[in-house]
Amino acid sequence: MDGCTILFKPQNRIIKVKEGTSLLEAARKAGVFIDAPCGGSGHCGKCRIRILEGDYRFEKSLVLPDADFEKGIRLACLTYALSDMVVEPLEIKVTNEVLVEDVDPGEEEKGWIKKARRMMEDSGIEIKSGLEKIRLALDPPTLDDNIPDWERLCGGLATKCGPQSPRCSLDVLKRLPGTLRGNGFDINVILAREHGDCEIIDVRGSCADKPLYGICVDVGTTTVAANLVELETGKIKESASAGNLQMQYGADVISRIIYSTGEGGLAALKHAVVEGTINRLVEEMTARLNIYPEDIIFGVFAGNTTMAHLLLGVEAENIRLEPYIPAFRNHPPLKARDVGIRINPDAPVFIVPGVASYVGGDIVAGVLAAGIWDSDENVLFLDLGTNGELVCGNREVMVACACSAGPAFEGGEISCGMRAMRGAIDEVTIDGRTLEPCYSVVGGTKPRGICGSGLIDLVAAMFMTGIIDPKGKINAGLKSERIRFDDNLGVHEYVIASQNETEDGREITINEIDLDNFIRAKGAVYAGIRTLLKTLDMNVTDINKIIIAGGIGRDLNIKNSINIGLLPELEEEKFVYIGNSSLIGSYLCLISRGAREKAKHIAESMTYVELSAFPGYMEEFVGACFLPHTDIRLFPGVMKK
Amino acid sequence: MDGCTILFKPQNRIIKVKEGTSLLEAARKAGVFIDAPCGGSGHCGKCRIRILEGDYRFEKSLVLPDADFEKGIRLACLTYALSDMVVEPLEIKVTNEVLVEDVDPGEEEKGWIKKARRMMEDSGIEIKSGLEKIRLALDPPTLDDNIPDWERLCGGLATKCGPQSPRCSLDVLKRLPGTLRGNGFDINVILAREHGDCEIIDVRGSCADKPLYGICVDVGTTTVAANLVELETGKIKESASAGNLQMQYGADVISRIIYSTGEGGLAALKHAVVEGTINRLVEEMTARLNIYPEDIIFGVFAGNTTMAHLLLGVEAENIRLEPYIPAFRNHPPLKARDVGIRINPDAPVFIVPGVASYVGGDIVAGVLAAGIWDSDENVLFLDLGTNGELVCGNREVMVACACSAGPAFEGGEISCGMRAMRGAIDEVTIDGRTLEPCYSVVGGTKPRGICGSGLIDLVAAMFMTGIIDPKGKINAGLKSERIRFDDNLGVHEYVIASQNETEDGREITINEIDLDNFIRAKGAVYAGIRTLLKTLDMNVTDINKIIIAGGIGRDLNIKNSINIGLLPELEEEKFVYIGNSSLIGSYLCLISRGAREKAKHIAESMTYVELSAFPGYMEEFVGACFLPHTDIRLFPGVMKK
Repeated sequence: MDGCTILFKPQNRIIKVKEGTSLLEAARKAGVFIDAPCGGSGHCGKCRIRILEGDYRFEKSLVLPDADFEKGIRLACLTYALSDMVVEPLEIKVTNEVLVEDVDPGEEEKGWIKKARRMMEDSGIEIKSGLEKIRLALDPPTLDDNIPDWERLCGGLATKCGPQSPRCSLDVLKRLPGTLRGNGFDINVILAREHGDCEIIDVRGSCADKPLYGICVDVGTTTVAANLVELETGKIKESASAGNLQMQYGADVISRIIYSTGEGGLAALKHAVVEGTINRLVEEMTARLNIYPEDIIFGVFAGNTTMAHLLLGVEAENIRLEPYIPAFRNHPPLKARDVGIRINPDAPVFIVPGVASYVGGDIVAGVLAAGIWDSDENVLFLDLGTNGELVCGNREVMVACACSAGPAFEGGEISCGMRAMRGAIDEVTIDGRTLEPCYSVVGGTKPRGICGSGLIDLVAAMFMTGIIDPKGKINAGLKSERIRFDDNLGVHEYVIASQNETEDGREITINEIDLDNFIRAKGAVYAGIRTLLKTLDMNVTDINKIIIAGGIGRDLNIKNSINIGLLPELEEEKFVYIGNSSLIGSYLCLISRGAREKAKHIAESMTYVELSAFPGYMEEFVGACFLPHTDIRLFPGVMKK
Repeated sequence: MDGCTILFKPQNRIIKVKEGTSLLEAARKAGVFIDAPCGGSGHCGKCRIRILEGDYRFEKSLVLPDADFEKGIRLACLTYALSDMVVEPLEIKVTNEVLVEDVDPGEEEKGWIKKARRMMEDSGIEIKSGLEKIRLALDPPTLDDNIPDWERLCGGLATKCGPQSPRCSLDVLKRLPGTLRGNGFDINVILAREHGDCEIIDVRGSCADKPLYGICVDVGTTTVAANLVELETGKIKESASAGNLQMQYGADVISRIIYSTGEGGLAALKHAVVEGTINRLVEEMTARLNIYPEDIIFGVFAGNTTMAHLLLGVEAENIRLEPYIPAFRNHPPLKARDVGIRINPDAPVFIVPGVASYVGGDIVAGVLAAGIWDSDENVLFLDLGTNGELVCGNREVMVACACSAGPAFEGGEISCGMRAMRGAIDEVTIDGRTLEPCYSVVGGTKPRGICGSGLIDLVAAMFMTGIIDPKGKINAGLKSERIRFDDNLGVHEYVIASQNETEDGREITINEIDLDNFIRAKGAVYAGIRTLLKTLDMNVTDINKIIIAGGIGRDLNIKNSINIGLLPELEEEKFVYIGNSSLIGSYLCLISRGAREKAKHIAESMTYVELSAFPGYMEEFVGACFLPHTDIRLFPGVMKK
């Protein structure tokens, strides 16, 4: 037999693969999206697939429930085709096409955008993108004035903005003769000027005048969010977000880096984020605004260091190998054409520089947005996304670290976890008497899973009602039908929503493995905070403000976060939720050349603390893997309850 | 019927075309080279093709001899496929693969290269290419020294050559982490520095040290010639030349421009010169020298203005439409990647700037090589290539013009004409008594045709022996079997070589139409010289030196050229043959940044004279369309004979 043809329902996508190929690999090749947070190692249980036809070989996995197994459901990563097959993925039955969602910037973010703009102006940073439109009404050539087109253009520019040696791409040069003659030599020149360089991005007829657009993109490990912005006014015209299609190669940066080192891996990951995610967002936004992708003449991208490398297709392997060295912090001048972003091919691309391998440009953008660089007070900045990054400091000094929190706050590595999208339980309370839960769902639908803020509420409520002990073990002695023993996994679990309550007829539960994962995640963050403060010789009480960013969602309950020992016990008014600060920061970089300079300065001047190498960190972590903490003096208010 | 499949013998190339497509168009699409100097308009008679099988429609043409017609030979441009066909081109039965010939720079050129280098140094122009190799032995990173790769490289460069903001392509950045680690952070950085810009072309391990190579290319309308040069020493390591594959779209720039404006025309012409000609020369030269194309890190190109436009794929239409405006003189920074030249994709590309639409970078390169810019004496520079361009002047002032001489001096528009390659008759004498010719052939083989220098000798000999009168009419009353009447064309002809003397069994003859074309060509050059001198208020006798360049060949007979009135009557020692001055000039630009600056200066400062608009030019031209001239006082020496 030559190979196996796999038909994926319901999209009817077909792919031919070698015999013995896993169905997950086949799905990736077919462009069928299957979530695989663990990168296909068989331990997350998310890549469930229903076998409709065909022969296969499979490995059993504890994370696949017996009930599923009996219905012919398997894990795609552990099922290998032996013949032609017909299969149907279960978990997220969507192709990436429909992952685009409307995302109106929330009130917090809108507020922060205004605030950050004001802050920049107050510190003398001009809100000027560096992209400009210059009108040139040139004299048409004659036999006596036979200066060539390009020299005529350069001469015209010189009269408007002083002598220049402008650059332009061959594409722009090729369009020049036609544009000049098609518009009677009356044109608008779109220029990018930075560091004495002058680059012509586009030449357009002056009568067909259009605004200049730019995009800023937060390239998250899990979610990619973008704004389409009118550069001259700074107005956000469209917003959109989508799951990062790289998810099918693993939930966290480490599994992606590992995938990238295999044959074709780097190209597949680049393609997934550029073609499969960002370009679709651009398409969606330009279609809604009814403009051409070519009208977008500047792009700013912020992501963690691995995302920045994969965006450019630069090998990321050394990020994960000691001594953890990125290929670049700043990058040489690049254009959309080089990166494959389908906006104007000559649009400059700016990737917000990062601090180190595990504190990337998303954090620098966040710090830029949060204004720590301009603060007299001590600010603690927490980004609770797929990983947890922390920055602490003020105008004078800033230190940063990365906690190995994993993706728990975006629902990763939790059996019923999901990101904060429609169908996610985002708030939970539990009746202390009946032990019955009460929850709210994003979008007001039936629930499909639980997101970060919901998990924090849930764990806090289980702890406060005594369902779990400080170690996260379930008290099996309590009388509630919601507390059960899972024979498969050999652990107890708590049922949040029964089959008939959920959208897909699958129970939503949390088990002791989930709880353990979650507690380790929150412990990593808290230990990170303590360690970072130590490097500054500061105590928790020295913090004047805690700014929380990231995909954890704006419904984060601060009290509950303190109750479980994720956040330090401080007055509630000291906590602020900033939203997607990486997107806000990249927006600032889009509309202000000065902001880009400031971001570079922040990235260079911030001190990176490698937690794993820091004396005493492990003790801090172990101590924090308790609800709320082994050292109860740190949470006096919680212990009083 | 859906289409016709045309099989070209002897290469057995197959192409499917629409019914009614001309065989010339089919050959172009199939990549079969058929010479078509007239661009496929049916009047040059070069595109002869033998029909072996199939139905077709054709138009009769006077330029196709009856004997040929009876043998089933047709003109490819006037024959249209009506069914599947099998055909065999006659004229030049080669694909472009074998057009590459060894060309060792001739003695004259070698001498001029030395002379030009010395001249440049004497005027303070440094022989430095601007490309350099800098060795950096960087400290490998550690946990305490975790500067990213790119920043580490930039830092290292700064210590060696001062603070830089180097640019590099994404490709170079992608290779950086691997190159650094594969070589223990001990590397050679290949830099291009110009106008304060600093561009990293390549990063290589320091142990695998290789010379830096560059190529300079004369992109002629008919012939493309290239040198592969070791940049640091200036040594020419390889030379090669080939017919410009664009010839299949017409012999002169006007027919190429016309072709370029049709659908896909511009792309076809660009592909013909870049992929079909230059890249093959590069392949040939790198293979012979046993280096990689990527080892070539700089490329300099000189060609007429149309060639420069077509090389870049920039529309050339305005060159031919009044007021004759090129798209560019200088070009923005470009790389080999942009142009499609298959050397190192990051190699900078420099196209020698031209003066105007009909005095291009090849002439500027020629003037640079000939040293007019440094001469106290009055120099007349003639480039007798596919067109004829003239420059006259000295250190203080230079004027230039283009004669519409056509391709006669490279054998174009002459029935048995060919360029000065193997098989070309390059010298001719005629016995005044017997009227029998005596000739020499390039390569010492049987003749296939006659090249420019041979034509000059032939016409001069026919004129001096009275075979033709001053108007180029053949004296039919002379008793010689070599003088005949061609019934087809209705004109007389002179047989230079009979069927059994030639390589392909085809007679080599010259007829009165050829003679008329040739006399008009030489008339255009002489009229150009006279007009150019007028603009400088000079006489022929004010000229101290005449430098002759171009494809006419080093065997040009000066006396004969004066005898027919092509060149002004001056002492023979005032004439110098420089060879391919465009190639010499582009070589100088390759090895010297200062030479590039000088070329830019020459291009900007030279005055272009548009002959067609110059009062009195037409009278000059009409007067010069005589052997030697209507005004015999201009050629006292000739008239004495």
